[in-house]
Amino acid sequence: MNDLNKWRDYLRDFAEKREWTQFHSPKNLAMALSVEVAELLEHFQWQTEEQSHNPEPERLAAIADEIADVQLYLIRLADRLKVDIGQAVEQKTKKNEEKYPVEKVRGSSRKYTEY
Amino acid sequence: MNDLNKWRDYLRDFAEKREWTQFHSPKNLAMALSVEVAELLEHFQWQTEEQSHNPEPERLAAIADEIADVQLYLIRLADRLKVDIGQAVEQKTKKNEEKYPVEKVRGSSRKYTEY
Amino acid sequence: MNDLNKWRDYLRDFAEKREWTQFHSPKNLAMALSVEVAELLEHFQWQTEEQSHNPEPERLAAIADEIADVQLYLIRLADRLKVDIGQAVEQKTKKNEEKYPVEKVRGSSRKYTEY
Amino acid sequence: MNDLNKWRDYLRDFAEKREWTQFHSPKNLAMALSVEVAELLEHFQWQTEEQSHNPEPERLAAIADEIADVQLYLIRLADRLKVDIGQAVEQKTKKNEEKYPVEKVRGSSRKYTEY
Repeated sequence: MNDLNKWRDYLRDFAEKREWTQFHSPKNLAMALSVEVAELLEHFQWQTEEQSHNPEPERLAAIADEIADVQLYLIRLADRLKVDIGQAVEQKTKKNEEKYPVEKVRGSSRKYTEY
Repeated sequence: MNDLNKWRDYLRDFAEKREWTQFHSPKNLAMALSVEVAELLEHFQWQTEEQSHNPEPERLAAIADEIADVQLYLIRLADRLKVDIGQAVEQKTKKNEEKYPVEKVRGSSRKYTEY
Repeated sequence: MNDLNKWRDYLRDFAEKREWTQFHSPKNLAMALSVEVAELLEHFQWQTEEQSHNPEPERLAAIADEIADVQLYLIRLADRLKVDIGQAVEQKTKKNEEKYPVEKVRGSSRKYTEY
Repeated sequence: MNDLNKWRDYLRDFAEKREWTQFHSPKNLAMALSVEVAELLEHFQWQTEEQSHNPEPERLAAIADEIADVQLYLIRLADRLKVDIGQAVEQKTKKNEEKYPVEKVRGSSRKYTEY
């Protein structure tokens, strides 16, 4: 069994034991995910891009914790919606290959920034 | 090799070929992650919790796409910081076990909501 | 002078005195704004919609503080981009009147939720 | 009457006419606010800090629109919670004066970045 499925099962059990499944609607989990991502963002808000590549060790440990939180809520949200993350990623990467052909987008961040 | 490492390598290669590595500072990737999570949140903002459990098929497909985007940016961000997601998750789940003992938190969302 | 302009001038002076203007790029301020909004969101993530209408007094005070933070960063961001919030709001409300004619959208959250 | 109160009343009327008040729980409005802020953030995610100071005119117009959306949802959220934004801002600016004395924080973004 791959890691994502192992963690999914772990989180199910974790919530069940605590009787927290009742709070885990997709709406609530999407909010929680959003809050965790902001805690990650917070570490970088006043840093330059260059600084953001080299957080001091204590900060890096805090960032790793937030990355784990985001990963865990994402798995839990997907599970509650019966979305298979592995399958979703495979489909999305195929779409991205088509959307961003190398020849067309090389060296440009333009594609991202259309509005 | 597990899926997370496979996707990590895929994303490295994807960015390299497009000469996008230059844009992929942790600061920028954290912002991109945050934007993707908001696109996920958007699907649920006017729904009741109950409705959020049962998106119609077309919406569910769009949600799965956003979940994939969040997963991919998270992997890319972790990679640029040399954070091992698997290891970070293992550490975080241990902390959560200690922080939320079953006997103390059962049936209550209180723990989350302290301010 | 209206409140928004008064606070704008106050924030300029506040940043100048602390030599913080150097950190206040629109990119950084948009990130800070996003972090503050998440702190607001956090208060509601495990509440039902109904509960969210009646926060206990201590929480309400904390929420008011976060609302102020969002307001202040929004003013500061607009100022750094020389955007007049008053003018932007007037234009946007006109667009909304056209986009959401009463007869067409009454009683439906549908309009919001197109994807 | 100041602008914030004028817009508050406008938004009340706008929602009432469309029978949208039912969707405007603080929980939902905080989510909507969060989504609008992400749309603002999106404009800056691949830009350098320097570029973020000078968006091309078309992008600046789009940014002004998003700033207006954030302002409007913030007013609406505050109104639904009976929070007076003017009063909340006055209190928060006083706290900030005490928290960040000029002599202690001058020229440093450190204060923000404690974790």
